Amino acid sequence: MVEMRKPIPVDEAVRAVMEHASSTGIETVKLDEAYGRVLAEPIIAKHDVPPFDRSPYDGFAIRSVDSAGASGNNRVPFSVIGEIGAGQVAQKPIGEKEAYRIMTGAQLPEDADTVVMFEQTTELDGGFTIRKPFEAGENVSFKGEDAKEGELLIEAGSLIHPGTVALLATFGYAQLTVGKRPVAGILSTGTELLDVADELVPGKIRNSNGPMIEAQLKRMGIECRSYGMAADELDTCTAIVEQALSEVDFIITTGGVSVGDYDYLPAIYERLGATVLFNKVAMRPGSVTTVAVLNGKLLFGLSGNPSACFTGFELFVRPAILKMMGCNAPYMPKMSAVLWEDFTKPNPFTRFIRATWEFRDGKVIALPAGFNKSNAVSSIARGNCLIVLPSGTRGYEKGAVVDLLLIGSETGVQEWTV
Amino acid sequence: MVEMRKPIPVDEAVRAVMEHASSTGIETVKLDEAYGRVLAEPIIAKHDVPPFDRSPYDGFAIRSVDSAGASGNNRVPFSVIGEIGAGQVAQKPIGEKEAYRIMTGAQLPEDADTVVMFEQTTELDGGFTIRKPFEAGENVSFKGEDAKEGELLIEAGSLIHPGTVALLATFGYAQLTVGKRPVAGILSTGTELLDVADELVPGKIRNSNGPMIEAQLKRMGIECRSYGMAADELDTCTAIVEQALSEVDFIITTGGVSVGDYDYLPAIYERLGATVLFNKVAMRPGSVTTVAVLNGKLLFGLSGNPSACFTGFELFVRPAILKMMGCNAPYMPKMSAVLWEDFTKPNPFTRFIRATWEFRDGKVIALPAGFNKSNAVSSIARGNCLIVLPSGTRGYEKGAVVDLLLIGSETGVQEWTV
Repeated sequence: MVEMRKPIPVDEAVRAVMEHASSTGIETVKLDEAYGRVLAEPIIAKHDVPPFDRSPYDGFAIRSVDSAGASGNNRVPFSVIGEIGAGQVAQKPIGEKEAYRIMTGAQLPEDADTVVMFEQTTELDGGFTIRKPFEAGENVSFKGEDAKEGELLIEAGSLIHPGTVALLATFGYAQLTVGKRPVAGILSTGTELLDVADELVPGKIRNSNGPMIEAQLKRMGIECRSYGMAADELDTCTAIVEQALSEVDFIITTGGVSVGDYDYLPAIYERLGATVLFNKVAMRPGSVTTVAVLNGKLLFGLSGNPSACFTGFELFVRPAILKMMGCNAPYMPKMSAVLWEDFTKPNPFTRFIRATWEFRDGKVIALPAGFNKSNAVSSIARGNCLIVLPSGTRGYEKGAVVDLLLIGSETGVQEWTV
Repeated sequence: MVEMRKPIPVDEAVRAVMEHASSTGIETVKLDEAYGRVLAEPIIAKHDVPPFDRSPYDGFAIRSVDSAGASGNNRVPFSVIGEIGAGQVAQKPIGEKEAYRIMTGAQLPEDADTVVMFEQTTELDGGFTIRKPFEAGENVSFKGEDAKEGELLIEAGSLIHPGTVALLATFGYAQLTVGKRPVAGILSTGTELLDVADELVPGKIRNSNGPMIEAQLKRMGIECRSYGMAADELDTCTAIVEQALSEVDFIITTGGVSVGDYDYLPAIYERLGATVLFNKVAMRPGSVTTVAVLNGKLLFGLSGNPSACFTGFELFVRPAILKMMGCNAPYMPKMSAVLWEDFTKPNPFTRFIRATWEFRDGKVIALPAGFNKSNAVSSIARGNCLIVLPSGTRGYEKGAVVDLLLIGSETGVQEWTV
């Protein structure tokens, strides 16, 4: 008899996975290794930014009081007593009608409170004249105007992108604490699987899920151990999964999660004593996606069908990895789009359709990436998003507004909202 | 006297850079090194997908003709003559009222043209009965229905993402040709610069641009050589740039491109005989962004101001790198959003404002990332997009619809449209 499984909604499945995704701990890394990691500590301004009053332009630093009364008919002359390039400091204080030639980014000399841009002067031998008065603070970047010492600038849990690196460098974070990256184990199951370098033989296909998942992990900077491919043989597969469990932080298997005669993952979970969180999700593709947990380690049983496998990774594995690293925004960004062709199939389950979004004539449109059966592989290589059609809906016509989840986005969002 | 420069529009500047970004050549890589590279050859289906008629379900393979006349009152019995797991093939042809037990993904036996799902049968000892007739082709995934041998599936010039890897694996691309990655050289100029590990001293700031650009390059998988930091000294800087030119494919410098007394990049370009494509762009931040070319190598002179430097990289350096790799969609994706706070400054030049886009109540909104002077560093660590306000516009009020360029998106678009 065929085992009957009760499907759970996608959001429940995501929640169940996230509840069991636990921190891999933290470690200290050097700044040049920080990109793509997750901050385990907030970035707090260690000093004011700018750290001193500075000139935002190339010009002359003066005391504004000396410019009083200047006009076209009463040009006020200044004598230049020195020059301050960026990184230099004035050697003496500024006196009445005195000025320093000052460059962008340089620290204002003591007592100077204004910068006159070159364009606002007429240069003379040893000095210049101005024809308008300046107010104190004109053309000055003030100490602390960008950030104040002690200010919390970026929260712990944020993904470190290049801008974050700039901020860390500014405050002298030569090293910092980040979430440890979990190590993944991958096992592709299926007697039908050939290696990528193998010639096709009747009844068999090449393993595309293993290399694809390795790339999905690589995109996240996650190291993986490949446990290769295993035929559908219970003892062998159990032994491999058991070994992997002792070596990695979580395991992704592909195939073997349906209810066929050789779908051994359910039996493997049972033998190992793993708790199955769910074995049926109300989604297409990937309804057979199964997730189990053993000794705090997640076992992701993804479908052997390529599209289902891809989607299962993005929906469940990716946010779990990000949570293990401490990331506070682990979900794919969502937006809406105008569906650009009919999609006539009804949706008893929530449907995720590989698609490309484009911006045309002021609106975002979504084009399904072609053939969308769960075993389709050509559509997988196209597209930059997933169209989400809620369960319980009928077909959609061109022009309907649908939700999208963006694939391959550097930063994510805090809430799962599909 | 201050040199007067003529600003050119952003799109002209982008076009000028792209015209001088030439291919770095191609190379062969293994499939597991392919992620993030650019296809130098199209992906052509080397065989049909699926490569054989196969079962999309667990069930029984039969000849549809044998199911004729079946009904609830006239259940038709079949005897099971064997079992076909995925990866196996039937050993003998199927006869009248005979069936194979068949698993998902397995090749249909000769003569069988239909699969009856387990749920559609009542199992008996040695066989089963069905209560409805089946049509030829019902529940069959046909050879070639996903892709036909010889079909062009993905064009050369496409970025290889995880789905592309799956497709390459399917067709046995154990290795493939991709665009070579250019090697970048980075030099941060400025007497004011300290290393990240240095204590602050009066008048100086830590170098944030160098580490930031290294991260921007790392995000693209681009190797770089750092030529460190150089004080504003003409001979020294010229020598470093000259050495770098002999060692890398393009050079990014930060600072020294304005018109101050120590802004030596213009003089360096002149000494080396480089052709300056532009030295003023009608944009903020980053109007001083300068790009030159020498012996086919691009020299990007980015502003020393962190926000301007960041933006200059994303607008000019990034698409140029992608073009060097042969990528046919090198530009940041664009979309529109509702501005979520007033931005009252006028925009004599095109303005790029670091911002965060979010999807709220069915629409995309854009929140400026705080302080947006060109020397701001805290805002750089926030945000996932750039708001674009065209030149010649006045301030914008909350609620206005504005364009966005998405930062950190895996795939890009073919046309620059800002």
